[in-house]
Amino acid sequence: MNKEIYDIAIIGCGPAGLSAAINASIRRKSIVLLGGELCTPKLQKSPLVSNYLGLPEIDGRTLRDKFLRHTRSLDIPILQEKVESVDRSEGDIFSLQTKESEYQARTIIITTGVTVAELVEGEREFIGKGVSYCATCDGPLFAGQQVAVLAFTNEGIEDANFLADICSKVYFISGGGLVPNGLKEVVEVIENQKVEAITGNEFVSEIKIGDRALAVNGVFIYRETYMPAQLISRLNLTDNHINVDRLFQTNVKGVFAAGDCTGKPYQLAKAVGEGQVAALSAVQYLDH
Amino acid sequence: MNKEIYDIAIIGCGPAGLSAAINASIRRKSIVLLGGELCTPKLQKSPLVSNYLGLPEIDGRTLRDKFLRHTRSLDIPILQEKVESVDRSEGDIFSLQTKESEYQARTIIITTGVTVAELVEGEREFIGKGVSYCATCDGPLFAGQQVAVLAFTNEGIEDANFLADICSKVYFISGGGLVPNGLKEVVEVIENQKVEAITGNEFVSEIKIGDRALAVNGVFIYRETYMPAQLISRLNLTDNHINVDRLFQTNVKGVFAAGDCTGKPYQLAKAVGEGQVAALSAVQYLDH
Repeated sequence: MNKEIYDIAIIGCGPAGLSAAINASIRRKSIVLLGGELCTPKLQKSPLVSNYLGLPEIDGRTLRDKFLRHTRSLDIPILQEKVESVDRSEGDIFSLQTKESEYQARTIIITTGVTVAELVEGEREFIGKGVSYCATCDGPLFAGQQVAVLAFTNEGIEDANFLADICSKVYFISGGGLVPNGLKEVVEVIENQKVEAITGNEFVSEIKIGDRALAVNGVFIYRETYMPAQLISRLNLTDNHINVDRLFQTNVKGVFAAGDCTGKPYQLAKAVGEGQVAALSAVQYLDH
Repeated sequence: MNKEIYDIAIIGCGPAGLSAAINASIRRKSIVLLGGELCTPKLQKSPLVSNYLGLPEIDGRTLRDKFLRHTRSLDIPILQEKVESVDRSEGDIFSLQTKESEYQARTIIITTGVTVAELVEGEREFIGKGVSYCATCDGPLFAGQQVAVLAFTNEGIEDANFLADICSKVYFISGGGLVPNGLKEVVEVIENQKVEAITGNEFVSEIKIGDRALAVNGVFIYRETYMPAQLISRLNLTDNHINVDRLFQTNVKGVFAAGDCTGKPYQLAKAVGEGQVAALSAVQYLDH
């Protein structure tokens, strides 16, 4: 665990996160910038960006390089670590858990982009009640029980193998064409079946896949992008976007959000502008 | 009068206005971009901008040139004409009056920046009831009457001379150190006096300056920057900023606003992002 208490933790290092970082850094706040994906595959793959004022007709890769160079010119390190969960400890300090370490900060800016994935029916409802996004965090709660892993990324394969050691049964559901290479033999792979719903009463008891219903106590889900609710479950959302006011404050004190995760249109200049305002709002919050 | 009905009229050609223009143009809407000041003296005079993501450590003049070059690369003409007033005619078409001409548009995006000037006491209350910002538009209403001109710009000198031909008496109050060169002799200059208030019952009847009270029916005010209320008086404001929602819609249907005129922080990236969203909102409004 890193012992420094940062002024601002920025989760996500796409355009909104980088813009928040440069603004907070210029305002002399200590920041930790954490992101699983470095300035987004979406930007990198864009063949031509023509609507970011001042840089006409630029390809996504070049623009991304300019963004990263700007960030590095201010000596802002980017930690390529995916934040798994956020807790608020005593004294109003936030703790951010990654696979590799733990970080502490006085404020948080969420700039995690938007997931294009549709949620599974029942997913939202059962977060913290059987639905989890992190086996390292929550796996031990399911020791000796049956669980399913729904994976769109290779991380799901690793975590399924980890769960296989502690759970009585692990089903592996391969989402979005992921090839389940490297799974332990005890894991039961279910292929080419649509996940219909996660059901239960107070807690998860079943996952319905195609015409099967598997009895499980836990469902672990691995996607490229974050669901905002998986970071801080108290966040108010609308259509899976984080509700913010015009200063990019969320309903949780000390937590700000910017960029695609706050709503449409999903646009670069919007994200950069919002990252700036969220950073300046966090600075103001810290100074008062 | 220009007979084309544009999809979008953008009032103001600072960063928010230019960003709105490039986005609307890419979305193939016809636009007229009107601004008295070309991409703002404020930006031009800035010695160093370091927080516009992608263009680190750039001076204001160079950044402004990049913005203007981007706009011109899309064949968007900028008309250096100051909009004096906006009316909504039949069929929901807006008419924009400038000194030089008149333009018509289906939607309006206001990106007029922010005035740092304090309003005169009574100014807001008497807009349209004696307070005016345009002698060409409203001067004839005051034929044969007494008026005062409060001028921070040379435009006030021109308009005072025009008013001197039609009014029985013109007082000229020089604001902000403006040297009143070229005024007609009949105009009475009042120097080094603070304007205390504009007063009256239903209509303006007096302007209080220092310890004098001048009997006037009209007060014409000329500043570098716009008061949002002088363009469209029905706009809802808070602290002289235009109220907008997260899509940058104002309370008036078809009218959007972006940049400093919508509120703090007064920042470049914020203005560029908001201009983009306002343009995309106007596009959506036009398409539905």
